[in-house]
Amino acid sequence: MLPQQITLPIIGIVNSPLKQKFGTPRQPNLVDINATISMLPPYNVLSAFEGIAQFSHLWIIWQFHQNRINTNQSNFQTTVRPPRLGGNQKIGVFASRSMYRPANIGLSVVKFSHIENTEAGLRLHIIGADMIDGTPVIDIKPYLPYSDSIDDAIAGYASQKPVIKSVHWHPDLLQDLSNIAVKTQLNQTDWQTIEQLIAQDPRPAYRQQALNTPFVMRYQNVDVHFSQIAESVLQIQAIELLN
Amino acid sequence: MLPQQITLPIIGIVNSPLKQKFGTPRQPNLVDINATISMLPPYNVLSAFEGIAQFSHLWIIWQFHQNRINTNQSNFQTTVRPPRLGGNQKIGVFASRSMYRPANIGLSVVKFSHIENTEAGLRLHIIGADMIDGTPVIDIKPYLPYSDSIDDAIAGYASQKPVIKSVHWHPDLLQDLSNIAVKTQLNQTDWQTIEQLIAQDPRPAYRQQALNTPFVMRYQNVDVHFSQIAESVLQIQAIELLN
Repeated sequence: MLPQQITLPIIGIVNSPLKQKFGTPRQPNLVDINATISMLPPYNVLSAFEGIAQFSHLWIIWQFHQNRINTNQSNFQTTVRPPRLGGNQKIGVFASRSMYRPANIGLSVVKFSHIENTEAGLRLHIIGADMIDGTPVIDIKPYLPYSDSIDDAIAGYASQKPVIKSVHWHPDLLQDLSNIAVKTQLNQTDWQTIEQLIAQDPRPAYRQQALNTPFVMRYQNVDVHFSQIAESVLQIQAIELLN
Repeated sequence: MLPQQITLPIIGIVNSPLKQKFGTPRQPNLVDINATISMLPPYNVLSAFEGIAQFSHLWIIWQFHQNRINTNQSNFQTTVRPPRLGGNQKIGVFASRSMYRPANIGLSVVKFSHIENTEAGLRLHIIGADMIDGTPVIDIKPYLPYSDSIDDAIAGYASQKPVIKSVHWHPDLLQDLSNIAVKTQLNQTDWQTIEQLIAQDPRPAYRQQALNTPFVMRYQNVDVHFSQIAESVLQIQAIELLN
């Protein structure tokens, strides 16, 4: 008899400026977020990564560790409401990439950046991760274009990239940005990443028309306040430093 | 503290004509093998697949269940010798898709064929699986081309598809094939699949020049005997029905 479940090791932990689910891109590779994976012992050895620089992209297999509901077995939810369908149409869980699924396993293709091996530990630097800070990593595999890249794949409701919205910075904020940069230790790349994250419109589907309603996305050590100021236009209104 | 390992459910079992590792393609989607996944309760409900026909391709996340060595933790092997490098060059395990890796998790993109829901159970029919019969399945997710298909990905030693060899059928065998078909219940599609499997050259890298040496690949209920008869030419010499 086969066991009805299997146990897997956690090999590393994600370090990301994304601190909460809100604002995290719904798929990998949509926003060029810089993140790292801190490898845990005994997987924190350089030889395990020998040759990895030959690859431009990697698969990361990871756990949706912040799910509060266990959707495994007795609590199995057969359908979900994907944001891409406006959040009010149900489809089967295996026809979606919803985080609420039996295995709670996420699959993301990211760009390989570099390996950093210091006394503080071994870190794999990646770009485009859609995982929040603290995410447990189960496996890292190279992306093989001859096998994984399927140009003519068809994906019904999810064939096209999500629409990107316009993002403006509030004029007062723009004027103060160099001061804020000093206080928060964030830099030009961070501002660009924040802009790209907001451009994805992280608001829930049923609130994506809410005009002038404030929303807050956490990024690294700041809260980013934004709201919609016109049709398809979002404005970043404040950057608040967290303690 | 985070747990150092996680437990996942097995949601289904693969049914495949591939009965042994020998002959199984080294990546998915190289050979159009027909296979099914028999869903296990409570995951064997049609609603969990609602909308799946919108997708041409699916990701299957599965377990290398026939690994005899546990490469997790104390037995962690940092390097492997991929067949693509002739089996005599070492690279890091995370720069390869070797089955000997901490998580023992396989990742395969396959074509969606159809769903079969009968009294005998719910089966997902897929094409192109590189998993052997009996493989435990952990998750099924749609392939999203806008996110997963990366045309310009670079993959060093594994950028190109493996070279396909010529496959001939022994003349005596060809003459007898209709008799064998009756005895074995195999059909034209099976013969084509067998030919495609042999064309991948399943022999170990260090024996890929072995002339006139017999090899045997198991497929469904038969043993397929083949050997190399000339440079890059393999010949199928006998189809032996198993009891």
